[in-house]
Amino acid sequence: MTEQELRLAMAQAVDAVHMTKPLAPSITNFVTVDFVANAQLACGGSAAMVYLPDEGEFLAQGQAMYLNMGTLMPVYEQTIPRTVQALAAAGTPWVLDPVGLGIGSLRTWLLEQCKEAKPSIIRCNASEAIALAQLWNLTTDQESGVRGVDSTDSVEDAEAAAVALARFTGGAVAVSGELDLITDGKQIAYVQGGSELMTCVTGCGCALGGVAAVYAAVTDPFVAALTASALFDLAGVRAALFSTGPASFKVQFIDALYNASANDVANVPFSVKEV
Amino acid sequence: MTEQELRLAMAQAVDAVHMTKPLAPSITNFVTVDFVANAQLACGGSAAMVYLPDEGEFLAQGQAMYLNMGTLMPVYEQTIPRTVQALAAAGTPWVLDPVGLGIGSLRTWLLEQCKEAKPSIIRCNASEAIALAQLWNLTTDQESGVRGVDSTDSVEDAEAAAVALARFTGGAVAVSGELDLITDGKQIAYVQGGSELMTCVTGCGCALGGVAAVYAAVTDPFVAALTASALFDLAGVRAALFSTGPASFKVQFIDALYNASANDVANVPFSVKEV
Amino acid sequence: MTEQELRLAMAQAVDAVHMTKPLAPSITNFVTVDFVANAQLACGGSAAMVYLPDEGEFLAQGQAMYLNMGTLMPVYEQTIPRTVQALAAAGTPWVLDPVGLGIGSLRTWLLEQCKEAKPSIIRCNASEAIALAQLWNLTTDQESGVRGVDSTDSVEDAEAAAVALARFTGGAVAVSGELDLITDGKQIAYVQGGSELMTCVTGCGCALGGVAAVYAAVTDPFVAALTASALFDLAGVRAALFSTGPASFKVQFIDALYNASANDVANVPFSVKEV
Repeated sequence: MTEQELRLAMAQAVDAVHMTKPLAPSITNFVTVDFVANAQLACGGSAAMVYLPDEGEFLAQGQAMYLNMGTLMPVYEQTIPRTVQALAAAGTPWVLDPVGLGIGSLRTWLLEQCKEAKPSIIRCNASEAIALAQLWNLTTDQESGVRGVDSTDSVEDAEAAAVALARFTGGAVAVSGELDLITDGKQIAYVQGGSELMTCVTGCGCALGGVAAVYAAVTDPFVAALTASALFDLAGVRAALFSTGPASFKVQFIDALYNASANDVANVPFSVKEV
Repeated sequence: MTEQELRLAMAQAVDAVHMTKPLAPSITNFVTVDFVANAQLACGGSAAMVYLPDEGEFLAQGQAMYLNMGTLMPVYEQTIPRTVQALAAAGTPWVLDPVGLGIGSLRTWLLEQCKEAKPSIIRCNASEAIALAQLWNLTTDQESGVRGVDSTDSVEDAEAAAVALARFTGGAVAVSGELDLITDGKQIAYVQGGSELMTCVTGCGCALGGVAAVYAAVTDPFVAALTASALFDLAGVRAALFSTGPASFKVQFIDALYNASANDVANVPFSVKEV
Repeated sequence: MTEQELRLAMAQAVDAVHMTKPLAPSITNFVTVDFVANAQLACGGSAAMVYLPDEGEFLAQGQAMYLNMGTLMPVYEQTIPRTVQALAAAGTPWVLDPVGLGIGSLRTWLLEQCKEAKPSIIRCNASEAIALAQLWNLTTDQESGVRGVDSTDSVEDAEAAAVALARFTGGAVAVSGELDLITDGKQIAYVQGGSELMTCVTGCGCALGGVAAVYAAVTDPFVAALTASALFDLAGVRAALFSTGPASFKVQFIDALYNASANDVANVPFSVKEV
């Protein structure tokens, strides 16, 4: 798609969500679950969070789903594999957020289980993109800088890993950072905007993943990831104008998600290049 | 009670909570647990959240309790039945919130276990009221429209189901929607107020259930449910005046819960009719 | 240290956190986990929350850690003992927050397991300090007034218990209340400030514990606990000036954590006395 075609598709995605209120259930971490749900509602979607295996399988039959590995419980050993298998079997678009990659043996094992189910969108930071591409044996020559849940690599450093991941899944990869990178393995979009305050609020990345799942219910993975990223970059810029610190920023940010029009989102500055 | 007697009882409940700060512990979902606790504190009560069986049994010996099925973990298979049995044995008033009814086998089974313990207050949306009345074999002729955690039925559609539930439990049922319906099986109150923004903030219903439990510690179930609903409708109206989207609305909403006087709550517009 | 030396050490701690962004992972309750993480980010630290045993052991090799017993899951029976043993073996500073002490058998057992690992900082309210000193057989003659998660004792009442706990662990104890008491068993600091609204917002104590862990990564336990308490007392005073209830207070409070300078924190009113 040309840049203009992409902008049109983004505007259509925003409008489609406002009109149809798609339900994008989540299996997500305990830290930011409230932020994910409120961001999904603010952009016009609907939310439902579950943790048990048969609940995940049931919701995998829906329009789209969001899976975030940020905090794990023992039952996830059943819940995640059964849910991703159900998602793959049903052809339901889903977003994988490999938060905390590198911490603990269950998380590593679960992320290995996600490989064959091929997530429609991978939402992560730069270090996670590099580490996930290695874990899935898609690249071999790069050391990632995951520290806890933070990235120590720049988004540009993760370009090769993101492209490799997208080519493997056939979907899209969205790497969050100062610039946001979104790729489907053929083109790469760099989206501008956001605010430094987003790094001082826990869960902006998780909320972005949840909203990308909402858009994935109404459009293809690349446009969904791009629309969500553009919306978040726009909301970050707007919220920073009216905030005195990270908590007032978060309030203004969610309000900005709610108030953004299709036209606003379609006009967020981004550039596209062929890979 | 006449409408005037009800308004007096509501004012007394608000004052009693402000003076005695009753503790209404919860077993509630991970998504909105912070909102539930903060709403309970804002209205003058006290909060404590638990998940393990013996913790539930211990807290069931207190003044009131709130049980919300929104997100389940495997341990709930023990925690919920043991807690509701302890609540019934102790005669402690409690609020049941059947969020997510229809998702997964454990939730259905747990809601069946709750039947014989007869919750003092059932707090739900219209589709959940209809579905719960069916699950408990109290009505047979209505199809519910639960979708994830949202309702697709109107509150008026749930009137017969709500009355059937209240008659079975001998307590009260509060159905949230554009108008809020509260019934004890003999009378029905319809409370006006609130704001459309309440549907864009996750957990307004959960928070209402938690606050209803606080009031249930100081008054009968019908008055408790009515007082909580009136307080929420009032706070919704006030918060909408000062908000630019769902997140600033939520901040203003909790502040309004905190600032509402007994007189304010007793004067919220509602009508009562005999069933 | 003299009061002046303490104030200098506090300023250095604030600056060191702003410059090095230490990661202080948590095993903490589901109610306030978002507040803990956002408070840690606001003061300049980094956050990561886990629940599984090997994840706890892994993160115990880091700079500092926060353990809060507010809500328990069955897996905590393994996670907490293995994590505190790893913390002790690695000599990593850690903060214990015995929320909910007295509720349920697992919590009591876990707090017994924490005794030998000697937390660097114990963060609690007055009733919890008294009850923990009894549980650990450090004092025998005092009845505590824990009610749910609230204190019914004054901070002054807990002075002997706090000193006994600090002498046993060789670390610091921070007791939150109208005045905040911080002791290392040799000196006691009483810090002024805060706001009554802090009792109407769930998790101010948990967030304080999480922030104390961030400071414990860069300074000794007594200075870390004192710095965190001073920062919170300062932020409470500032937030109260600009809030209309508990939710706007919480927003302003987190913003104030973010905006406080080293000099601001070092100048918070407190007095020190020898024990």
